[in-house]
Amino acid sequence: MSARPKILFDPFPRRTDMFLAPEMRTRLEALGEVVLHEGSRMPAEMVERVLPEAMFVLGQTDLPRERLERAPKLKAIVNVEGNFQPNVDYGYCLDRGIHVLVIAPAFALPVAEMALGLAIDCARGITRADRDFRQGRERYGIAGSTESLQLTGNVFGLIGFGNLGRALLPLLRPFHGRVLAHDPWLPEGLLREHAVEPVGLDRLLAEARIVFMLAAATADNQAMLGAREFGLIQQGSVFVLASRAAVVDFPAFLAAAKSGRIKAATDVFPVEPVPADDPVRGVEEVILSAHRAGGVRRAHHEIGLMTVEDCELIARGLPPVRCQPARRETAHLFRSMPARSYAQKV
Amino acid sequence: MSARPKILFDPFPRRTDMFLAPEMRTRLEALGEVVLHEGSRMPAEMVERVLPEAMFVLGQTDLPRERLERAPKLKAIVNVEGNFQPNVDYGYCLDRGIHVLVIAPAFALPVAEMALGLAIDCARGITRADRDFRQGRERYGIAGSTESLQLTGNVFGLIGFGNLGRALLPLLRPFHGRVLAHDPWLPEGLLREHAVEPVGLDRLLAEARIVFMLAAATADNQAMLGAREFGLIQQGSVFVLASRAAVVDFPAFLAAAKSGRIKAATDVFPVEPVPADDPVRGVEEVILSAHRAGGVRRAHHEIGLMTVEDCELIARGLPPVRCQPARRETAHLFRSMPARSYAQKV
Amino acid sequence: MSARPKILFDPFPRRTDMFLAPEMRTRLEALGEVVLHEGSRMPAEMVERVLPEAMFVLGQTDLPRERLERAPKLKAIVNVEGNFQPNVDYGYCLDRGIHVLVIAPAFALPVAEMALGLAIDCARGITRADRDFRQGRERYGIAGSTESLQLTGNVFGLIGFGNLGRALLPLLRPFHGRVLAHDPWLPEGLLREHAVEPVGLDRLLAEARIVFMLAAATADNQAMLGAREFGLIQQGSVFVLASRAAVVDFPAFLAAAKSGRIKAATDVFPVEPVPADDPVRGVEEVILSAHRAGGVRRAHHEIGLMTVEDCELIARGLPPVRCQPARRETAHLFRSMPARSYAQKV
Amino acid sequence: MSARPKILFDPFPRRTDMFLAPEMRTRLEALGEVVLHEGSRMPAEMVERVLPEAMFVLGQTDLPRERLERAPKLKAIVNVEGNFQPNVDYGYCLDRGIHVLVIAPAFALPVAEMALGLAIDCARGITRADRDFRQGRERYGIAGSTESLQLTGNVFGLIGFGNLGRALLPLLRPFHGRVLAHDPWLPEGLLREHAVEPVGLDRLLAEARIVFMLAAATADNQAMLGAREFGLIQQGSVFVLASRAAVVDFPAFLAAAKSGRIKAATDVFPVEPVPADDPVRGVEEVILSAHRAGGVRRAHHEIGLMTVEDCELIARGLPPVRCQPARRETAHLFRSMPARSYAQKV
Repeated sequence: MSARPKILFDPFPRRTDMFLAPEMRTRLEALGEVVLHEGSRMPAEMVERVLPEAMFVLGQTDLPRERLERAPKLKAIVNVEGNFQPNVDYGYCLDRGIHVLVIAPAFALPVAEMALGLAIDCARGITRADRDFRQGRERYGIAGSTESLQLTGNVFGLIGFGNLGRALLPLLRPFHGRVLAHDPWLPEGLLREHAVEPVGLDRLLAEARIVFMLAAATADNQAMLGAREFGLIQQGSVFVLASRAAVVDFPAFLAAAKSGRIKAATDVFPVEPVPADDPVRGVEEVILSAHRAGGVRRAHHEIGLMTVEDCELIARGLPPVRCQPARRETAHLFRSMPARSYAQKV
Repeated sequence: MSARPKILFDPFPRRTDMFLAPEMRTRLEALGEVVLHEGSRMPAEMVERVLPEAMFVLGQTDLPRERLERAPKLKAIVNVEGNFQPNVDYGYCLDRGIHVLVIAPAFALPVAEMALGLAIDCARGITRADRDFRQGRERYGIAGSTESLQLTGNVFGLIGFGNLGRALLPLLRPFHGRVLAHDPWLPEGLLREHAVEPVGLDRLLAEARIVFMLAAATADNQAMLGAREFGLIQQGSVFVLASRAAVVDFPAFLAAAKSGRIKAATDVFPVEPVPADDPVRGVEEVILSAHRAGGVRRAHHEIGLMTVEDCELIARGLPPVRCQPARRETAHLFRSMPARSYAQKV
Repeated sequence: MSARPKILFDPFPRRTDMFLAPEMRTRLEALGEVVLHEGSRMPAEMVERVLPEAMFVLGQTDLPRERLERAPKLKAIVNVEGNFQPNVDYGYCLDRGIHVLVIAPAFALPVAEMALGLAIDCARGITRADRDFRQGRERYGIAGSTESLQLTGNVFGLIGFGNLGRALLPLLRPFHGRVLAHDPWLPEGLLREHAVEPVGLDRLLAEARIVFMLAAATADNQAMLGAREFGLIQQGSVFVLASRAAVVDFPAFLAAAKSGRIKAATDVFPVEPVPADDPVRGVEEVILSAHRAGGVRRAHHEIGLMTVEDCELIARGLPPVRCQPARRETAHLFRSMPARSYAQKV
Repeated sequence: MSARPKILFDPFPRRTDMFLAPEMRTRLEALGEVVLHEGSRMPAEMVERVLPEAMFVLGQTDLPRERLERAPKLKAIVNVEGNFQPNVDYGYCLDRGIHVLVIAPAFALPVAEMALGLAIDCARGITRADRDFRQGRERYGIAGSTESLQLTGNVFGLIGFGNLGRALLPLLRPFHGRVLAHDPWLPEGLLREHAVEPVGLDRLLAEARIVFMLAAATADNQAMLGAREFGLIQQGSVFVLASRAAVVDFPAFLAAAKSGRIKAATDVFPVEPVPADDPVRGVEEVILSAHRAGGVRRAHHEIGLMTVEDCELIARGLPPVRCQPARRETAHLFRSMPARSYAQKV
């Protein structure tokens, strides 16, 4: 008699109760025996014990080739994290039809909503005007809005058109503006299919008045926006940094904001948590958000749901459709910081 | 030979150059002789001299019946202000087919964009989190977002469905939530025609998680939301006050925010400018905006454009279509503060 | 003691049960005593008897000045018809604040849906291909579609931007094309406010590939599209005639269709019902629709609802908001055929 | 020195000039040496000659394991056809990271537009009314529309939510109705993410008034709608068959149309071309369309573009993003008829 399949569940640094509602847990248990370790990475011996019968690995367990070879029944790895990490031998998995999945899509919508909110905040000076108001320096009506931008009819620019860009796009449609997009991994036809205008990076920066930086950090795009690029942006345009700090030259970003060239907001920082004495805390020209864009409860519920739903599909012999699958060509290129670096991160 | 028609132009407290681009001025002059007085209300003798040949009055000139009787050629009054003021004998005008127009629609879109921005800011705590960050109290990721609301799939409530509500509605559509609306001047069929759900006020407050107060101040709705009404709102819901302070019991509004029942923002205050020592300046739970929601430059350009376009239509014998016309039944009911009360107001 | 107000109800050629659900009837009776005559125009003596106490007239009763003078309590006339007819002294009414209303908005949405359906039918040859199929002449796949047009990304042209154009516009948005509009009664700013491009008629015809004729018939636009205008349209473009036949030179329209210049559909004809031997019946290049575009049951329900809702508002001292009000400048310009010409017309 | 990579191009039954614009051809040649055979399937000896250096195979060339083993440099197969055929050893390819792609997405938008057109045609009786008109049997206005359905506010049902359903969904949004969807390969969360309501098939049939059959034919869903299922549909609802005939019990479908239960249209038939004497040609209650839904020129241009764009990405070391990739779990389940069965098919 064949043993019941096992589900190796190693969610650290996430806590199970943060993203796995009891109902989801029950559905998971219907698929196999859940072997859970919480509070730290699962100990090696426990991993080894489970691997031979493991159908699913959920978490960021290290899975080099030699471990994978001991998991002949493995069908999928869901790292319950937003980014592809270097902890898995992707080639080995993909050669054998083992799905390697991240739950990044769970964050796309919350980040998109936040990015829109930050853009309006920059365009209209909401946070700064609130600060001025408390200090008795508020200015009323048009006098307090001489540099405000209207979104309707304006030109939007999306740098990166993956999960985030595609979630943001529908939110921008009612403003009836042009939407420019730049993504070096995507051909023009794909962008046109989404009714956005494919443009080169320089042209995007020169034409868009509301720019969203949404590109995932990869081996290729470190500091892709520096002083030269910020210099291309029209004076007083909005710039929202919503993906990862590494994709911009951060000092150049701050300088562009301080000079007034960009009305800026950022959800990400080169080092998180930001050191207590980091001078960024005093930069009034940038809205500061502590990696909160993805952090709504519903996103955490989605993590659990999409994990369970994809496992159920795989168990039925169908392909997963909710998580984002690793692709051979790019899985090793991602460079976003792993969640383990600070426990409370999304 | 008939004299060239005159255009009495009395824009105080607005300044002509704030809203009338040179090209618009030229188009206006093509319709008649522009008689302009700036910097104060037009002197009575000047008004009297122009009235007999006046085709248009642009501004907030007092126009009681006795003056109107001396303006037999008058076709329209555009007060270049967002609200109907008690300075005109509306009945006399409407009996004679004299259009009385306000430029309120120019502000609808900027206010709608700002209202959405304030709603996202409340839902995600953007302004408060920025303040915390500067004080070294930021919390990262989900830890900093435990009370955040996602807009997508949520329940929106619009109190008032006039210019503002109709401009805001399309911006909410991509969130695919239910949209409830309450407007005592509008029948259910009108609301359903716009694909919103007509509901009573209490039900709106009890069901909506993101509430927009958009009702113009009228004789009937002073302080229509008080402690009882705020008490109906679900704990932690968003409440954006974007129309006029008079429509809420302002102390009750502040109390609801301080208690955490509502995540609140307001663009309006009972007295503007707000006194220097007004304790509202210290209420951390409310985003404070100094009547800035309508104040984008493009709105001011629109004021000029819609004034000129409607005058051109009227001069051609066609009805105006851009400004909002006074209606006999309601013109006398509006109670929004006149723009003259502070010169820099929108 | 004041008499109960009367509601003169003279719906011929409509039948009450076609548009007034029992619930609507009850609501109407709550406003006053309903005096109804059906099956023919209300006899003069009956009209005279009711007028002195009439608050509302519902129907196409002749109301020249001398009759109106005998109706001192009249607040509104709803003709329960889509067009302004010459049966009312509009100036007299509007001088006195008597609303004169048509229920045209009830048809806007059904006509818009039909217009879109006819446009897709023209673009893809649905009706003709069905006819060919039945005759054994169908062609499969691309061979049967060499002249088909895709709507997505194409250029749309709206001639007339009143009720119909505004109802159709949202249905066109998902196709992400340019939308050009021409309406001589509307200024550019109004069109831009709706995010359509204002253009002159010739340019619209030359650039749009899917043209909708939506202009109401007026004194000014009889046969506004003739051979010259159809000649401006690009070969093989779609042309949907959805308003009134009088706005085109009908023989020129048919000639343009027969020549292949336009892929055409029409819902209207110069004479309705169309004579049995009218050669239009044999024109294979035009989709023929017998004034059916507005004729869904729900539209008839809407007629009753909007009539009752506006009467209720007026009785409460509020302005009507659902029916379309006569405007002094244009009420006398409309030239659409009255409904009385054939009893079953919408 | 390494040989220049080869591109085996075997498009039969398509003709190259139908879908490969000269500019696309040039781009393809920049990637490698194009070895083309047209007018029939590429002869075996020619295939064998090319395989050792082939980077791409474009077409429906048979590629069993033994051939694939002789193509060590192969990176992708694009069958330039809408469906996965049994001509490729999918497992072998996917184990080795060889992409197997179909160009189905090129047809999604044209089919979606056609499906909407057919739905409006059914709902409003356009094609039938045109037929009646030509026979002198037209009925005007509401008399000719007593059974018409309005789309706005109605309930839509999508059976299948793959390429077609996702392309159709945005076109339905402006009608502001509920959208129900059923797809046994997709979990509820995926459907909710697209803001449609996941429902079981029976409930979809019972509640939706406008039903779109969009499911690809698979091993599992042959004749999934039979007499029982059509009997669940509400009397007079719209049913558009836009995917493949095999997914319905075709006689039961025709019977449901003849009985008046459904207002029906079909783009597909059990045997295509339909035999000359097939009685379906006389069924007046069904709109007949000869597999024309995907057949717009622009779709053919898209086939070429998406093929070239994906090959360019793969040559750069990036994953393809435009064509639909075979997935291990399902590639063998598709049962749609191959294009070779009739040369002019899309």
